[in-house]
Amino acid sequence: MYKIGIDVGGMSIKAGIVKDGQIISKMSKETNCERGVEGLSQDIADLVEDILSQNNIDIKSVSNIGIGIPGVVTNEGAVTCVNLGLKNSLIVPILEEKFKGTKVSIGNDANVAALAEFSYGSMRGYESGVMITLGTGIGGGIIINGKLITGANGIGAEIGHMMLSTNYFDCNCGNNGCFETFCSATAIIKYAQKLAEEGKTTKIIEYAEGNLNNITAKMVFDAYREDDSVAIEVVDRFKKYLAMGLANIVNFIDPQVISIGGGVSNASDIMLNGLNDKVKKHLPFKEGNIGDIVIAEFKNDAGILGASAL
Amino acid sequence: MYKIGIDVGGMSIKAGIVKDGQIISKMSKETNCERGVEGLSQDIADLVEDILSQNNIDIKSVSNIGIGIPGVVTNEGAVTCVNLGLKNSLIVPILEEKFKGTKVSIGNDANVAALAEFSYGSMRGYESGVMITLGTGIGGGIIINGKLITGANGIGAEIGHMMLSTNYFDCNCGNNGCFETFCSATAIIKYAQKLAEEGKTTKIIEYAEGNLNNITAKMVFDAYREDDSVAIEVVDRFKKYLAMGLANIVNFIDPQVISIGGGVSNASDIMLNGLNDKVKKHLPFKEGNIGDIVIAEFKNDAGILGASAL
Repeated sequence: MYKIGIDVGGMSIKAGIVKDGQIISKMSKETNCERGVEGLSQDIADLVEDILSQNNIDIKSVSNIGIGIPGVVTNEGAVTCVNLGLKNSLIVPILEEKFKGTKVSIGNDANVAALAEFSYGSMRGYESGVMITLGTGIGGGIIINGKLITGANGIGAEIGHMMLSTNYFDCNCGNNGCFETFCSATAIIKYAQKLAEEGKTTKIIEYAEGNLNNITAKMVFDAYREDDSVAIEVVDRFKKYLAMGLANIVNFIDPQVISIGGGVSNASDIMLNGLNDKVKKHLPFKEGNIGDIVIAEFKNDAGILGASAL
Repeated sequence: MYKIGIDVGGMSIKAGIVKDGQIISKMSKETNCERGVEGLSQDIADLVEDILSQNNIDIKSVSNIGIGIPGVVTNEGAVTCVNLGLKNSLIVPILEEKFKGTKVSIGNDANVAALAEFSYGSMRGYESGVMITLGTGIGGGIIINGKLITGANGIGAEIGHMMLSTNYFDCNCGNNGCFETFCSATAIIKYAQKLAEEGKTTKIIEYAEGNLNNITAKMVFDAYREDDSVAIEVVDRFKKYLAMGLANIVNFIDPQVISIGGGVSNASDIMLNGLNDKVKKHLPFKEGNIGDIVIAEFKNDAGILGASAL
């Protein structure tokens, strides 16, 4: 039997046919954010039909279709996502009506990425794990005793919005001190811009060709490798708060493994160096063991793979 | 069949015989902190034998003995507790040898209190819940899908040491911004002392008979009821950070219920008033539902009841 994973993003909807944890075929189409739940469901259904026909696979050979979506998903599958025009919208029943006999499931995209790592990637073989994705924001997914923890109202694992300390700017969510305002790619860029604006000399400005709006997290890590003092300040700050954020995760549920993904994790050598000890420093019991800290395995395919494993 | 719950504290060891969720008999003896694992195990064994003989109950009628202890308890039952002179100490095998045929279990005291509320008290009937105990420090216990979550290394549910913001003094654990430095009874007292030392007029000083060292959390809440402006400032600060701490719990695992215990929860009317809305304000999605926030049912008996339910 095959599984189908659907990864709904703000720009595109990606579909993949998965067999034995491998994506054997992929297809995508543009996301049309104005079409609401009916339109989105139709687009997903079309994509499923197209990818099946392209691969000469009958829907009867598909055990389940899983969908990952960037929004709040209740345990009943109701999705709220402002960007996609969804409010407590039910996609699953529409697709189950279209593909009778095939199980359809839906989950939050960050949770789904965690499931991909847990089922097939960096967290395979563990029983409990937390995944954090350091990108534009910080996404989170929690697995305990082999089960994805989405919470009583589908609003769990919002680890990016865990308040951690006080910061010099507020989070988009209206609060101050959210984890993602310290450790997302956006936070790294913002702090580098701040230091550059204060007039500090740095290679980062050179890499950005003089335009601070061009700064990327990669440029900061590249400059760090060149012993650039501003880059060192930015990265040290990032690592300080990353250790605090991970310590809070350990304090909470002490998982067997924490997997770090997202663009920032490309600089894994810099990020992981000394991180374990820094995390322990922020625990009440500093002598015990903590779980493994690893780098996520999947990049763009996490959504499809995880959704197929829902 | 009967269960026996043992509550090991720094001052006394309490034992109780539990039947159908009720304590039918209690007994206690002084804790002798210098006797190490062998001595402590012997003291527990003596207490078990005494309470059974006093009640004419045979050990064969006891299905299990559970022990709650203030320390780190690994999944293998190894206990580390500086105050009791224990370091990776195994109490369970010693007691199982003494009481052959009776199952013996051990757990952290805050986790055990959560289990008491979950099995018999304020969280009964829920599937997932978090308990926080606002006392000298803040203890925590997490239950997901009916199971106590103690973590991979027994260091989970240390919710009191979740870093939350920046504070004007450091936590005993060496970090800054731990939840318990904002919301424990100690934190409330400390902030009232600080404002009084700054020369602000307040009824709290009167209640404390002019000695700031006499201030209790109860005095602060009593003065709050009298519209005392310093008490209002202290309580408002406490509630602000309590809402942030609870929001972090919701952000993490979105439990069906959060139960608040400990001495501070005696002022439940003041504490709960408006709390739900304040918590929602600190979530990224402010329109959804959150779990119930309730007050713990058991006071001193939580340890015995919870241990018996291990």
